[in-house]
Amino acid sequence: MSIQLLENTYGESHVRLLRVSRQEGRHDIRELSLAIRFEGGFEAAHTLGDNRKILPADTMKNTIYALARQHSIEPLENFGLHLIEHFLTYNLQVSRVVVEASESIWGRLPHGGKPHPSAFARVGDEKRTAHLRGTRARTEIRAGISDLEVLKTARSQFRGFKKDPYTTLQDERDLILSTIINATWLYTEEDAEFGGLWHAVRQMLLETFAEHQSQSPQHTLYTMGEIVLQNFENIGEIHLSISGRHFNLVDLSPLGMDNPGTVFLPSDEPYTVIEATLKKTT
Amino acid sequence: MSIQLLENTYGESHVRLLRVSRQEGRHDIRELSLAIRFEGGFEAAHTLGDNRKILPADTMKNTIYALARQHSIEPLENFGLHLIEHFLTYNLQVSRVVVEASESIWGRLPHGGKPHPSAFARVGDEKRTAHLRGTRARTEIRAGISDLEVLKTARSQFRGFKKDPYTTLQDERDLILSTIINATWLYTEEDAEFGGLWHAVRQMLLETFAEHQSQSPQHTLYTMGEIVLQNFENIGEIHLSISGRHFNLVDLSPLGMDNPGTVFLPSDEPYTVIEATLKKTT
Amino acid sequence: MSIQLLENTYGESHVRLLRVSRQEGRHDIRELSLAIRFEGGFEAAHTLGDNRKILPADTMKNTIYALARQHSIEPLENFGLHLIEHFLTYNLQVSRVVVEASESIWGRLPHGGKPHPSAFARVGDEKRTAHLRGTRARTEIRAGISDLEVLKTARSQFRGFKKDPYTTLQDERDLILSTIINATWLYTEEDAEFGGLWHAVRQMLLETFAEHQSQSPQHTLYTMGEIVLQNFENIGEIHLSISGRHFNLVDLSPLGMDNPGTVFLPSDEPYTVIEATLKKTT
Amino acid sequence: MSIQLLENTYGESHVRLLRVSRQEGRHDIRELSLAIRFEGGFEAAHTLGDNRKILPADTMKNTIYALARQHSIEPLENFGLHLIEHFLTYNLQVSRVVVEASESIWGRLPHGGKPHPSAFARVGDEKRTAHLRGTRARTEIRAGISDLEVLKTARSQFRGFKKDPYTTLQDERDLILSTIINATWLYTEEDAEFGGLWHAVRQMLLETFAEHQSQSPQHTLYTMGEIVLQNFENIGEIHLSISGRHFNLVDLSPLGMDNPGTVFLPSDEPYTVIEATLKKTT
Repeated sequence: MSIQLLENTYGESHVRLLRVSRQEGRHDIRELSLAIRFEGGFEAAHTLGDNRKILPADTMKNTIYALARQHSIEPLENFGLHLIEHFLTYNLQVSRVVVEASESIWGRLPHGGKPHPSAFARVGDEKRTAHLRGTRARTEIRAGISDLEVLKTARSQFRGFKKDPYTTLQDERDLILSTIINATWLYTEEDAEFGGLWHAVRQMLLETFAEHQSQSPQHTLYTMGEIVLQNFENIGEIHLSISGRHFNLVDLSPLGMDNPGTVFLPSDEPYTVIEATLKKTT
Repeated sequence: MSIQLLENTYGESHVRLLRVSRQEGRHDIRELSLAIRFEGGFEAAHTLGDNRKILPADTMKNTIYALARQHSIEPLENFGLHLIEHFLTYNLQVSRVVVEASESIWGRLPHGGKPHPSAFARVGDEKRTAHLRGTRARTEIRAGISDLEVLKTARSQFRGFKKDPYTTLQDERDLILSTIINATWLYTEEDAEFGGLWHAVRQMLLETFAEHQSQSPQHTLYTMGEIVLQNFENIGEIHLSISGRHFNLVDLSPLGMDNPGTVFLPSDEPYTVIEATLKKTT
Repeated sequence: MSIQLLENTYGESHVRLLRVSRQEGRHDIRELSLAIRFEGGFEAAHTLGDNRKILPADTMKNTIYALARQHSIEPLENFGLHLIEHFLTYNLQVSRVVVEASESIWGRLPHGGKPHPSAFARVGDEKRTAHLRGTRARTEIRAGISDLEVLKTARSQFRGFKKDPYTTLQDERDLILSTIINATWLYTEEDAEFGGLWHAVRQMLLETFAEHQSQSPQHTLYTMGEIVLQNFENIGEIHLSISGRHFNLVDLSPLGMDNPGTVFLPSDEPYTVIEATLKKTT
Repeated sequence: MSIQLLENTYGESHVRLLRVSRQEGRHDIRELSLAIRFEGGFEAAHTLGDNRKILPADTMKNTIYALARQHSIEPLENFGLHLIEHFLTYNLQVSRVVVEASESIWGRLPHGGKPHPSAFARVGDEKRTAHLRGTRARTEIRAGISDLEVLKTARSQFRGFKKDPYTTLQDERDLILSTIINATWLYTEEDAEFGGLWHAVRQMLLETFAEHQSQSPQHTLYTMGEIVLQNFENIGEIHLSISGRHFNLVDLSPLGMDNPGTVFLPSDEPYTVIEATLKKTT
């Protein structure tokens, strides 16, 4: 018997930074969390404890800070491309660099009806994400949204599903549909206008979620993905993952009351997960 | 030796509900988490295992759902008053009822430039809170804000502080001031216009945070509290707690770079806590 | 109208450290998280932005590290006393110092049937805690346990309780009693043998929880506190807080099955909280 | 342009249960969290909103409870096989069923020097996991460990690594190596003695971690995997993921003190991730 080392990676995760841009009369801030992973020729480190090809994960962290000092980090995708180019240039032992970036969203505080020039509030758990995988041959660029929690109280039903002896769920014409949206999409160009595209895709996903006459979470998920692929030429593929939180009607009949769609119990567990990837074909 | 049972309470916590109000063409939703606690004559339950004066905590949960079915839960403070009145009326063994309520904030999704009538997105970790303590003689009503994270990149310094041999912090004229605000204030009336007041206090706290020429977190905290007491006749006391998160400048000198207020390291631990209560006197 | 500054404090929280003691052939580790708070004459900082009496919270952090370098941090209570003495000696503007310490528990990995001399695994969420409040006149020393989750499947019932129209809970002779225990107790001496006492109190609390014929969580909580007060001369007061998690029998009747105390649904929300303080009187 | 639906799945996650086995004089408990996912012919649900092939995720939850009532859930792997067989039998539209199971570990409270027959305490965050992927042709069975946090203060160095201009890390002969271990291994038999094997693999991983003369986390990871593959005939592959937490020596030189491996700062972020899969070849 011998042992083979299959896929192996290493890197630094959750490297956080806040970058402040100071113009006269106006500051801008961006807060990121980044992870870097290397693939490459690391067999000797594993099998022999020979570290000569191992650039420390700590250096990845330093490099993030150094490049964030020298370059704009906006849009995320371009900052990711800088990082990949840097690491591939100076590390011949590395065959692929993966960059995952997640941006926390800050909004400006109001100030006499206008946005304040230097005071901010954190806006929710939603993150703007980017995921890049680069080799010396090519780089895949994905952008995304994570942890965006949405809910609709109309235009959602679930009927005509398969039933078996353990099925107790009833057909429902008037559901609360609540999900946490995680989406990532693949760009077909390396020099797209990533900032504007992200906002446009996000807007389209939210409008579709809101307006779709949903027969099921699958049905809504597919429609959201389809519309993005149809409307953006430079997006070739989209992956959607929906975590459906359950809002069950509280049963008030033991208390002698009806409950016509009024009081619901929000619950975090269990939840339903639906995932799919949609791809353009020619 | 004998043993005395001092303060003792019991109750149900984290009772969650979503309430949907359905008007033609427009739905409204509110999501709450509530806790109820009873104080009263519960010695026999503790010392003898005699439960005759113990209303189950489970019944507190049922009562929350029953009253949420029958009454509006908006504003929080009035729903809390309903709960206290109900429990004190039907439970002579109870001397004080405490209600803590926390509302998660949902905003409407956009729809053709206008707010959508029935689709929503969760807005951050910020919560609107209410805290009521009622006896048969009187009820204290407090409203509040929790988990509101704000940050300013200007108008904040910390200088002239006491130094000892273990002090390494330098005087700073240009700090990032970042805090999670938790505020509660005491109303001097039981029938104030709680909904509008909450929004007005919140707005005043945020504007003061943004504009204040801060010499220290204490200085800003006090000013925030002072302005609220000066501007609202029916608020008699305010408690503020500020968790100051550290954003330290990343030291890039080992990498041969300066860092003129550009790249900061956000950190969750340790953090600074400042708390104070301000009260009107006549 | 004028404004009065009531209680106010500031300090540094979640200052973490790992201390390694290296003897020949054996290492010991302890991991702590500490918080320091000062009370004193800080009015000018609040009202005028005058920081001359403000020792930076950052210096509190440095002081913790300096004293952890110079002194043993075991037991927690003695390390807390060192910190209080240091801060009161060098800070005349401070009238009270509060130290909260929380120790994460690490156990040794097994090594050929014996404990390993230098390899460890984290043991659960349970923390050993200490809470000290010191003035120049005296210091209150409390020790405690937090986040210790226990469960019993026998010797627990809840019957004969008060019922009202919203009560749906039935009398139960055979409950699962599951709680997260938080306990703190007050020592009546400043030089007790804190290390051994903590282990003895913990053991007594757990044995009482396990063996008590529980009529209610209140009944068990009181008995746990009573036994500690009866058995330890130098403990004058104990506070217990119990978060009762619900384990509800899954209703399998819609699936045509019974469920005789077999399959339960663990739930985190809602939960029942019971709190009480017991005190020795003479 | 047309759109292709690639991989898609749905299912129910975080279905929790506690199962109590009651023998005379002794109770046993096991707490699980399960997730089920289906792959199969769900195109019509996505593209047309036709739910006829969609068994509700809610029914997956009911089925877990029904089978947990009828069968032992120990070992996890056998319970997973029951679930897969059930779903494949009754759902011809399903081509693959994935079961992920995670067991929380409870230990018995002490009782007069012996384990208590019916009282328990939760033991840490560590989970025993199983991951099964079954089609009508075959089932892959993986077992694992997650969230096991370990630390060693000896036998760990990191030297001779690659340095670049942004590298500030120094060669270290005496490191604290601290990691959260996540491991999964693939069985080559469907009827192995899963319970005993899990304990034996866990023991071997921990002993290897403790005793290995580590040149790097990669080196230790590989050695841990290699030893498992060498010692267990019916394990064909192992995946290890190590999240290295940083314990940095606190720099006390600004306070005029040395720090010879005594006081460290535990930090949760950033952290280093190392992953690899090792496979037997013939």
